[in-house]
Amino acid sequence: MPSFVQVLDFIGTFAFAISGIRLASAKRFDWFGAYVVGLVTAIGGGTLRDVLLDVPPAWMQDPFYVICTAFAMLFVILFSKHLIHLNNTFFIFDTIGLALFTVVGVERSIAAGYPFWVAIIMGSMTGAAGGVIRDVFINEIPLIFRKEIYAMACVVGGIAYWICALVGVESYISQIVSGSTVFLTRVLAVKYHITLPILKGDPEHENEA
Amino acid sequence: MPSFVQVLDFIGTFAFAISGIRLASAKRFDWFGAYVVGLVTAIGGGTLRDVLLDVPPAWMQDPFYVICTAFAMLFVILFSKHLIHLNNTFFIFDTIGLALFTVVGVERSIAAGYPFWVAIIMGSMTGAAGGVIRDVFINEIPLIFRKEIYAMACVVGGIAYWICALVGVESYISQIVSGSTVFLTRVLAVKYHITLPILKGDPEHENEA
Amino acid sequence: MPSFVQVLDFIGTFAFAISGIRLASAKRFDWFGAYVVGLVTAIGGGTLRDVLLDVPPAWMQDPFYVICTAFAMLFVILFSKHLIHLNNTFFIFDTIGLALFTVVGVERSIAAGYPFWVAIIMGSMTGAAGGVIRDVFINEIPLIFRKEIYAMACVVGGIAYWICALVGVESYISQIVSGSTVFLTRVLAVKYHITLPILKGDPEHENEA
Repeated sequence: MPSFVQVLDFIGTFAFAISGIRLASAKRFDWFGAYVVGLVTAIGGGTLRDVLLDVPPAWMQDPFYVICTAFAMLFVILFSKHLIHLNNTFFIFDTIGLALFTVVGVERSIAAGYPFWVAIIMGSMTGAAGGVIRDVFINEIPLIFRKEIYAMACVVGGIAYWICALVGVESYISQIVSGSTVFLTRVLAVKYHITLPILKGDPEHENEA
Repeated sequence: MPSFVQVLDFIGTFAFAISGIRLASAKRFDWFGAYVVGLVTAIGGGTLRDVLLDVPPAWMQDPFYVICTAFAMLFVILFSKHLIHLNNTFFIFDTIGLALFTVVGVERSIAAGYPFWVAIIMGSMTGAAGGVIRDVFINEIPLIFRKEIYAMACVVGGIAYWICALVGVESYISQIVSGSTVFLTRVLAVKYHITLPILKGDPEHENEA
Repeated sequence: MPSFVQVLDFIGTFAFAISGIRLASAKRFDWFGAYVVGLVTAIGGGTLRDVLLDVPPAWMQDPFYVICTAFAMLFVILFSKHLIHLNNTFFIFDTIGLALFTVVGVERSIAAGYPFWVAIIMGSMTGAAGGVIRDVFINEIPLIFRKEIYAMACVVGGIAYWICALVGVESYISQIVSGSTVFLTRVLAVKYHITLPILKGDPEHENEA
């Protein structure tokens, strides 16, 4: 029987893959291309983290992610017309994935011997880098750089983990606090339309660049 | 005297580099930019594979790839007006490269101790990821996600290798069968206009994304 | 007290981060996105180099780069209206960074046991790859492939280092000669409008691609 964390991992991977597959389908990718974009969205962040930590990428140890993306692909093919009615569900699933991936990223970095400031960056990368690669592949400016509190929720959750560690609570409590912080930060930001300010640069710059 | 595999490797690397250099020239890159895009097209897939397998990238062990790309550059500069008449030749060369790179990718992954499902992905990545990076650099949606059987031919060839290994044939027979499968799959797909279906997603998604 | 090299490193990192942040602001990124693009511009080249050399990325060993990018961010926020008058200063700072990063890239590759032809590529990558990733993130064709002597200056500086090593001078003289060569090559190229030729390819290629 799968553990609770495995269930969360499935939900998160599934939601990340769905987001990649749907955006690929909006760009008229073929089935292969859509699958690859879905897979990269799901595993891209963790893979980048593992390469930087110099540990074997998680998806190469376990066919789970490849299979889970195949389920997501099947789901989009079968239910394409109804997906739009599931947007709120996908939002919740995606945010569960973001929270879980952040916690996993922080923990793997600490386990590899890095200090917390690195672990927080790695946690955020685990959560958000897959979406950046997805957007590069579909030739769009990465969404997370322009809209919504997304990666920023990972940073806040990573800091929450750090505070828990400083206070000295048990590891599983740190996980719950950190993951819940990511989840709530994103949900509240979307609900109350909280966004980061746009950086106002020199308007002439674009012409001279 | 170069071995048969070295001759194939030269042909494949040359054709991959040519494809990068030609697309870069269509975008009016300068000589340096065109060379870099050519090199990345040729070595990108293998480099990504070696980073994921945590082995030293092949192009850093042997100046062969850097020199071969220089020949491709010279070739495009000298014969730019006549390249279009060589399109069929380039197609064959490119497909030889695709076949060889797939076989090399599968074998290096097996040698690194990974199971076949990882090796097939790595073989496909070796063959196709260079073209993806090329298309990102020239700011286009990667061609292989939208058109033609390309990376899919690598997947089929990787599965052929797996079947050979399951049957228990000699290693060189697996190589020939796998490489020929990649080659024939692509050639037949192009000849008979066989493509993968486009993924039909929810049309409203693009607006809401 | 910081050493001379540390001062140069700060200047270079600061200038690279500024260039990323300014281009991100021209695309209306939010603060988080601008910071990430600034950081990636500053550390991207060195990180790619370290991943290929299989050594721990420099920015994960020392919070210097993360903090330096934060200063660059603050600088852009506070002085956005006046930045355009500092363009010549930024150009000099950026070129100092390019020179230093090239030298560091060459040396780390030699220290990792690679021959000079690899070290020259790695030096150029350290100097120029951050800007390539920056341009991919803002969804533009990388500037260095189309305009100006930029990465080419790194190649020239890397060759200068090689010649120094062949002649057998002391290490610190190689560093000064190599760095100065990068600096002067770029400054002179910009001053006298020296550019590499555009690669003239087959004009029909774009249509048939």
